[in-house]
Amino acid sequence: MAAPIDFYFDFSSPYGYLAGEKIDALAARHGRGVNWRPMLLGAAFKLTGGQPLPSIPIKGEYAKRDFLRSARFHGVPMKIPSVFPVSGLAACRAFYSLNEKDRVALAKALLRAYFVDDLNIGEPEIVMKIAAGLGHKPDLADPAIKEKTKTEVDAALKAGVFGSPYFIVDNEPFWGIDRFDQLERWLAKPF
Amino acid sequence: MAAPIDFYFDFSSPYGYLAGEKIDALAARHGRGVNWRPMLLGAAFKLTGGQPLPSIPIKGEYAKRDFLRSARFHGVPMKIPSVFPVSGLAACRAFYSLNEKDRVALAKALLRAYFVDDLNIGEPEIVMKIAAGLGHKPDLADPAIKEKTKTEVDAALKAGVFGSPYFIVDNEPFWGIDRFDQLERWLAKPF
Repeated sequence: MAAPIDFYFDFSSPYGYLAGEKIDALAARHGRGVNWRPMLLGAAFKLTGGQPLPSIPIKGEYAKRDFLRSARFHGVPMKIPSVFPVSGLAACRAFYSLNEKDRVALAKALLRAYFVDDLNIGEPEIVMKIAAGLGHKPDLADPAIKEKTKTEVDAALKAGVFGSPYFIVDNEPFWGIDRFDQLERWLAKPF
Repeated sequence: MAAPIDFYFDFSSPYGYLAGEKIDALAARHGRGVNWRPMLLGAAFKLTGGQPLPSIPIKGEYAKRDFLRSARFHGVPMKIPSVFPVSGLAACRAFYSLNEKDRVALAKALLRAYFVDDLNIGEPEIVMKIAAGLGHKPDLADPAIKEKTKTEVDAALKAGVFGSPYFIVDNEPFWGIDRFDQLERWLAKPF
């Protein structure tokens, strides 16, 4: 089987959520797996001078409209969360505390909790509750988990990830759910 | 006939060039015309804090790769110009100096000169030469032309344009050539 697609995203990213709802099926159509790799967009923004979309004048207003239209376009349910954006740190730590086989289900549950049920996954207690619903009890204060998370975020930065979602397949990078069309053609045949 | 699509772009924008090669056909498929409205992205960046992509760390490197891949994806010939980006001011003034019926041909000639033939359209003399090739001799220093250009750029900013390309159809805004899929679906049926 060909190498999996590296799928980087921030838990607070609407486009990351939309991508998470679609990427596994896209990859499967081309005989690929997906390596889910949540990261912290704030760490990337320190390197690029970027800011969360909602805080940018004019562009922020457009973005809110585009989030919802993009969700309708892709047929994915979504609401703009009441508190937005939030830190994905607790969510990342919970994710990386689990065995690989359990991680994706937790990531999907966290993203849906935030973007469908309007639960504030920036709060560790909410993250713990969602993890508990899947039978997990991560220790978010465990130094090993903190270190593992930091290592993963650093690896994403080192790979050049500056946005969410971000995909790397066979060394080719694709930024944004709006590169799904290019990603899909690339998987069929690099161009 | 339904209202035309307002198509805003900066003459120095690779994605604006790609959009310019495709938008007329897209619009025609849905019985629409296109109102070409070049603007100056630098003026928008003053409002949003944006910067030209090539000058942004990490993202700039990705962008150069994405420009060329996007051109291949859309089947449009493109090179990254030797001098990039450049000011679109002279090009805008030449464009707005013409009668409406002559403008689009000049815009396409200028964009192709820059992105295919590597001619620096930031230089007024180059713009004049390209205009002359189409039988025009615009007076780029004419105060009325300068004022007309300023009025058009201000109108774009007032319409909320912050990127290139940017489309508005029936009050619905779409930013980026990567929204062509949403724009096309919208033209078929708003969603």
